Amino acid sequence: MRLLISLTTALLVNAASLAAEPVGEPARIALDPAHLRAASMLADTALEGTEAMDIVRGLSYEVGPRSAGSAGDRAAVVWALDRMHQMGFASVHPEAVEVPHWERGQVTVETVAPERMQLMAVMLGGSIGTAEIGIEATILRVHDLAELATLDRDEVAGRIVYFDRRMERNAAGSGYGVAVQERGKGAIEASKMGAVGVIIRSAGTSTSRFAHTGNMHYEDGVRRIPAAALPNSDADALERLLDRGEPVTLRLWSSARRLEPEMSANVIGEIPGRGTLRDQVIVLGAHLDAWDTGLGAQDDGTGVAIMLEAATRVATVSTRDRRTIRVVLYANEEAGLSGALAYVRAHADELGRHALAMEADFGAGRVLSIASGFPEGTVAIADAMIASLAPMGVERGASDTSGGADVGRLWHRGVPVLAPRQDGTYYFDVHHTPDDTPDRIDPAQLDQNVAVYTALTYLAATYAGDLGRVPVTPDDAG
Amino acid sequence: MRLLISLTTALLVNAASLAAEPVGEPARIALDPAHLRAASMLADTALEGTEAMDIVRGLSYEVGPRSAGSAGDRAAVVWALDRMHQMGFASVHPEAVEVPHWERGQVTVETVAPERMQLMAVMLGGSIGTAEIGIEATILRVHDLAELATLDRDEVAGRIVYFDRRMERNAAGSGYGVAVQERGKGAIEASKMGAVGVIIRSAGTSTSRFAHTGNMHYEDGVRRIPAAALPNSDADALERLLDRGEPVTLRLWSSARRLEPEMSANVIGEIPGRGTLRDQVIVLGAHLDAWDTGLGAQDDGTGVAIMLEAATRVATVSTRDRRTIRVVLYANEEAGLSGALAYVRAHADELGRHALAMEADFGAGRVLSIASGFPEGTVAIADAMIASLAPMGVERGASDTSGGADVGRLWHRGVPVLAPRQDGTYYFDVHHTPDDTPDRIDPAQLDQNVAVYTALTYLAATYAGDLGRVPVTPDDAG
Repeated sequence: MRLLISLTTALLVNAASLAAEPVGEPARIALDPAHLRAASMLADTALEGTEAMDIVRGLSYEVGPRSAGSAGDRAAVVWALDRMHQMGFASVHPEAVEVPHWERGQVTVETVAPERMQLMAVMLGGSIGTAEIGIEATILRVHDLAELATLDRDEVAGRIVYFDRRMERNAAGSGYGVAVQERGKGAIEASKMGAVGVIIRSAGTSTSRFAHTGNMHYEDGVRRIPAAALPNSDADALERLLDRGEPVTLRLWSSARRLEPEMSANVIGEIPGRGTLRDQVIVLGAHLDAWDTGLGAQDDGTGVAIMLEAATRVATVSTRDRRTIRVVLYANEEAGLSGALAYVRAHADELGRHALAMEADFGAGRVLSIASGFPEGTVAIADAMIASLAPMGVERGASDTSGGADVGRLWHRGVPVLAPRQDGTYYFDVHHTPDDTPDRIDPAQLDQNVAVYTALTYLAATYAGDLGRVPVTPDDAG
Repeated sequence: MRLLISLTTALLVNAASLAAEPVGEPARIALDPAHLRAASMLADTALEGTEAMDIVRGLSYEVGPRSAGSAGDRAAVVWALDRMHQMGFASVHPEAVEVPHWERGQVTVETVAPERMQLMAVMLGGSIGTAEIGIEATILRVHDLAELATLDRDEVAGRIVYFDRRMERNAAGSGYGVAVQERGKGAIEASKMGAVGVIIRSAGTSTSRFAHTGNMHYEDGVRRIPAAALPNSDADALERLLDRGEPVTLRLWSSARRLEPEMSANVIGEIPGRGTLRDQVIVLGAHLDAWDTGLGAQDDGTGVAIMLEAATRVATVSTRDRRTIRVVLYANEEAGLSGALAYVRAHADELGRHALAMEADFGAGRVLSIASGFPEGTVAIADAMIASLAPMGVERGASDTSGGADVGRLWHRGVPVLAPRQDGTYYFDVHHTPDDTPDRIDPAQLDQNVAVYTALTYLAATYAGDLGRVPVTPDDAG
């Protein structure tokens, strides 16, 4: 019901925004009616069906697993260059990026006392492996980092710490930001207290018997300990054993290892601008790498597909003045944002003419709302663009976003962002698991994404005025 | 909505059947009002919560994988004897059954031309493995056995036959009976035409990246060839490659092997009868074995739990006359019904006093209807028992069932059956896959199963008249 109601409301808003004169509040921006009609037509055309699903299948099946530094990573770069050429992009080229290289190897996790039980598990991305003999230790079960911090070192030393926090499911995917804390920092904080290993309940909502991998961190000066994740199903099994109250001894063995960095690339292609706006750039960002356990269909094959489709669809409308649309398929988002950081370094001199950035990296659920990260002076422009999409059932989201993991690097350096918010209810069922395959995608919802991104890109690319600059802020990522 | 409507209708039917005098049709049987009240009370109590979920967790986590002939199979027998003793069953004992022993080993399936692609796969149960070097052959894609039969031997010889039929999802689970044909007989029919191997799209509806295993057959005099199944996701990937029209070469390697038969056991326990009916037996059947890839939570841990709960719950009502309730936890249902066939052989002399049999082996979806396999002369008794459960939203199912894979052996030998039909919409998402774990079960629906089975068992155990005999029919299973 919620969508239907918002659609009705939205139609009224849109009727207002379509009027040639701004109505009501003085800050209201009136977008060019011809642009609004073109954007609406572009959206309608996309809703009739796009090639996005075919692009996702191509990247998933022809390349498949492609974690940073792997052979698949290099194959993805070749695939992307080829696809961009086929689709008619200009200035198609790779930009070299050094990326970390980590090999997952094999893993076994089993309880050895009071009962022997094999558990399905995956190593977290970047984790060290174990010695050939593995590690064997008594489990210390804690809920989260906060509970760990309340313990004495004596209670933790020599233990394998098990974090039992379960990720909550919701449309915003906000459970992920909470659950990912233990995945990211668990090994650091547990090691500081003398633990010998970390096991987490996956930061994900899957009911399949696959654990969710994902990046983890170490800290200089803190001993590195291995970290693995259990599927929700096997976390249940372990907890049943722990609930008996007897000490549970766990054995973890892994051949994961960190190798020397490798070269990868951001893959870039453009829809050249026209007229007076041609020197300004709109970045459409998605990432080309994907965790090795799945096919990266939704993380981030769909983002790649949405951006390639949106850019080329905007080019189908003849326009006198248009900003250059630059699709940037980033290297290594997953294990440290290497591509996004390399991009802002390599393009430091021209960031001033980056007028806007958007990212697609949240699967393929339909867009429910659009957030923005605009300066105060031009937020009304973002409001108007977003309001014009209301007939598609898309609401106005927050106005304080930095846009996403990759394009957030641009926002920190002054570039405004628009950020469509997809329905993430089911995204974390497949995220970072082998289940991230094309058959889990609803092509109609994917096309709705293309429609929204295309319309927004068109409106931003053709808006005659200045979109402004956001305040430059320190970028923790580098 | 459907359930609500049937519940309303059902209440009316029940009001009629509760009347002391039969109303309407002359064939109407009036069950003892005291029995109906007791059955209704038993059902209500079960709906408030049972130990069934705990039993499932016990068998799944404490025993886990338990395919016929494996160490887990023997552990399951010990577990079941122990649990029956704990629950207060009488005459708890194992009855020896010889079972086949098959080891899954490892499997790799990959395309090697026109592109190299790793595919997830499982061997079908009972399949031979390959030589150390594996087999490599061009794929012949066919839809099903019928299409294969239309081809010439020249077209099939030397190929790996790929059956692409996709199982349909519905509440009755009827898509399984269709899709399982290629799993069961594919290797026989393909081999007859000279094929060197068989690959099927899984006989299952899972969208997880797990293939569904399950039993396959060979035929004397037909060369044995290996047979594997792909997850739906990886079947999609393979089909995308096949759709390009170039020959696709597939490599299959497997270390699966058939070993010498092992001893296992049917595990039996009784709720002793009382008074004049005590010599008659009602069999409640479920199977103790489970495919090795999952934990056998729904196949058939829930069946085991339902039957153990139903039998002991009936015993809580004091009754002057009651048939003996015998829970039979069958060995090796999955790979050839060894336990069911051993049971009818070992109990041939007393089959005449088996008054009724029921089976639970279809997961844990709520019971939607109840089918029967009664002789014509007593079908009105089945009608009355089933009608009395209508307030629970349970409808009258077909009256021509043989009751299930295990108790069907009894039906062929004259024993009437009642067969609750569960909602199978989601059962084939986990069936024969690693996802068959306790967390995929809705405890409330499981308790509804216990309620239905308990009430039915009570009514059948206390019914004062004769339930009759069904005609003896040839049993293809042996």
